[in-house]
Amino acid sequence: MRAGIVVTGTEVLTGRVPDRNGPWLAEELRRLGVDVGYVVVVGDRPGDVTSALSFLASTGVDLLLTTGGLGPTADDLTAQVVADFQGRPIAVDPELEQRVARIVERLMARRGWRADADATAAGVRKQAMVPRGATVLEPVGTAPGLVVPPAEERTGPPVVVLPGPPGELRGMWPAAVAAAPVRAVLAGAPELRQETLRMWGTLEAQLAATLRELEPERTGLEITTCLREGELEIVTRFPAGGQPAYDRFAAELAGRYAGTVFSTGPTLDDLVGEALAARGLTVATAESCTGGLLAARLTERAGASATVLGGIAAYANSAKEQLLGVPAGLLAEHGAVSPEVARALAEGARTRFGADVGVGITGVAGPGGGSAEKPVGTVHLCVVGAGTELTRALALPGSRSAVRNRSVTMAMHLLRELLLGGPPA
Amino acid sequence: MRAGIVVTGTEVLTGRVPDRNGPWLAEELRRLGVDVGYVVVVGDRPGDVTSALSFLASTGVDLLLTTGGLGPTADDLTAQVVADFQGRPIAVDPELEQRVARIVERLMARRGWRADADATAAGVRKQAMVPRGATVLEPVGTAPGLVVPPAEERTGPPVVVLPGPPGELRGMWPAAVAAAPVRAVLAGAPELRQETLRMWGTLEAQLAATLRELEPERTGLEITTCLREGELEIVTRFPAGGQPAYDRFAAELAGRYAGTVFSTGPTLDDLVGEALAARGLTVATAESCTGGLLAARLTERAGASATVLGGIAAYANSAKEQLLGVPAGLLAEHGAVSPEVARALAEGARTRFGADVGVGITGVAGPGGGSAEKPVGTVHLCVVGAGTELTRALALPGSRSAVRNRSVTMAMHLLRELLLGGPPA
Repeated sequence: MRAGIVVTGTEVLTGRVPDRNGPWLAEELRRLGVDVGYVVVVGDRPGDVTSALSFLASTGVDLLLTTGGLGPTADDLTAQVVADFQGRPIAVDPELEQRVARIVERLMARRGWRADADATAAGVRKQAMVPRGATVLEPVGTAPGLVVPPAEERTGPPVVVLPGPPGELRGMWPAAVAAAPVRAVLAGAPELRQETLRMWGTLEAQLAATLRELEPERTGLEITTCLREGELEIVTRFPAGGQPAYDRFAAELAGRYAGTVFSTGPTLDDLVGEALAARGLTVATAESCTGGLLAARLTERAGASATVLGGIAAYANSAKEQLLGVPAGLLAEHGAVSPEVARALAEGARTRFGADVGVGITGVAGPGGGSAEKPVGTVHLCVVGAGTELTRALALPGSRSAVRNRSVTMAMHLLRELLLGGPPA
Repeated sequence: MRAGIVVTGTEVLTGRVPDRNGPWLAEELRRLGVDVGYVVVVGDRPGDVTSALSFLASTGVDLLLTTGGLGPTADDLTAQVVADFQGRPIAVDPELEQRVARIVERLMARRGWRADADATAAGVRKQAMVPRGATVLEPVGTAPGLVVPPAEERTGPPVVVLPGPPGELRGMWPAAVAAAPVRAVLAGAPELRQETLRMWGTLEAQLAATLRELEPERTGLEITTCLREGELEIVTRFPAGGQPAYDRFAAELAGRYAGTVFSTGPTLDDLVGEALAARGLTVATAESCTGGLLAARLTERAGASATVLGGIAAYANSAKEQLLGVPAGLLAEHGAVSPEVARALAEGARTRFGADVGVGITGVAGPGGGSAEKPVGTVHLCVVGAGTELTRALALPGSRSAVRNRSVTMAMHLLRELLLGGPPA
């Protein structure tokens, strides 16, 4: 079973908005046994959307999905394009029009906005256009979704038409899956499993040689490796019957790379979060160049308040001294970007918040502020607590944002090493 | 002039890694006068990559680009697929092989990694495979890029083959643009301009009615609107000759929506950052539910250290009291999530960091922690400084991450209002 997704929106095509829907739908469909072969991103041009649908249909997919283009403006044209593509006439659904009108009224009242009544009515009417024979998916925001099968005399996959805002799309997904034409497709889908191994400190080429030797694809495993922020992620997909083959493969890799495989599934963030919770430890951060990114990442997980006490982004030296107790002499002698100050920051975070574990990060994120001795990308990290202290000095390549993100990832690996042992960060 | 982009990588297709290359390339190409019609995301399967290339070529594009699939592992197959697609035989380039080998050696030495010599050599050889007649783009990481024209007897667009890691791709881009087959395409491209208006507080349907009335497309303007985090973004693209038409359109909109248009170009973050710098003001933050996200966002801009003193993520109540001076009585009487505590946080941030402007955020991000009186999504914000105080109480829908992000955006709008006036946040 295969599906294709068309993501519409010039704002997505040009990168002003990242596409969060295609990947989310691909993962949901995988759980349902449907493999997504393509995600096509197109702008708000009817001809381009039609070409994308035709291309995907020509690859023989069993299900087509579109996201976006269901709003009230003139560039929102997905419903009309899909109706034409499936050969079905389109018309206003009067009851749906009333339901959408009520939603828009409530929304405007809540925000205290006013708008021209005629303009609003025209927008509502546009959003209530339904191809004949389509299933309406009730709005989560203001836009209804649709499931549009091909016209009676035609063959081809049904098209599921979903709104662009990710919250609306996700809220509508259960109704889409429950629609009869989608259920009919899913009935034939086998279970498709996915497992992940994560390594830290092995060269991708070395792993490639091992994979060539083990030939996992011979046993029906589909493997992709991905190098991300220094981490090597090995994702394997297989039908349910391939579980024993996968278990043998995973055990073989874990044996050969015992020093670098740090996870047989959970993400780095989950490992750190769960280790803190399991050991009943609290953590606090003191960040200079990363300016709060580590604290934000640690508090991203639900339930973080049980283990994360907080953090101080001490951009100014005065803040490092007064709020984190970094001695002025230390700053003067070694400079703010130094292993000594990283350690003082970590200790300061721990003391000021009364936490078990403290993390300190100081560095030059750039593009300015570098020197011959401490060029852009110089970062010092320190993690203290649980009777241990780990430090790291980095010389990172790349942009300001790359330096900040990699520093935060390295801090997470130091936390992992301190809490769980395993491959050195 | 039109281009099509094929983004390869099962990790991108399944959402484990967001695609940062397609949108970046689309924007770079736009600057060069080339309009990107499609971005197709495919997994690491040769047949799918070939289908995507064929589809894009069939739409009549002048230039094809691929990203990813240039690593040393077996699932890295782009060079071979593109060679086949263009009808060119492929072989190892011995000099390139030596250059890549030296890069890999240096990389491993720097990281202190060891790997099997044969395995490394096999990976290097794979990365040095070049289709006959192709231009080699020197590696920025370990992977070379390619510009592959169609074989002599064929017609069709040249294919620019770029690596997947965004830093490598961006570093290689100038060389790609300078390659003769790409230069030949770009020589025919006209200038294509893009302008943006940003509104806060107007309903999309209302704007849609205005656009229907003004009919900007009649004057050659291509307009897309996008609702994002409550902000309405109106992006217009036009050939250089359309500038007067655009200026009239923008003036008309700015006149009709004087109360809600807050920018004729710069992003919210740039407006706030530039206003702080222009007025010589400093800012500090105190965050509860957003846990450092606002500080991280404020410090994302280069040069932020001149205006951002820092921030405190005070997750625990004890941290709010001890580090930010929020009175225990206030917390007991009103609860941590209250307008009173938001104000005390903002004042605390200002005082503790000695900043001109302080921001306080406190709320229930969920999924736990809500109550009947203060459900998940309840957030209070306060911005104080420059002789003014602005507060906001929000009842936000959506996930933990949606609540956190929207709260931070609202704080940025409050800062904008405080610093620049204009539409109320």
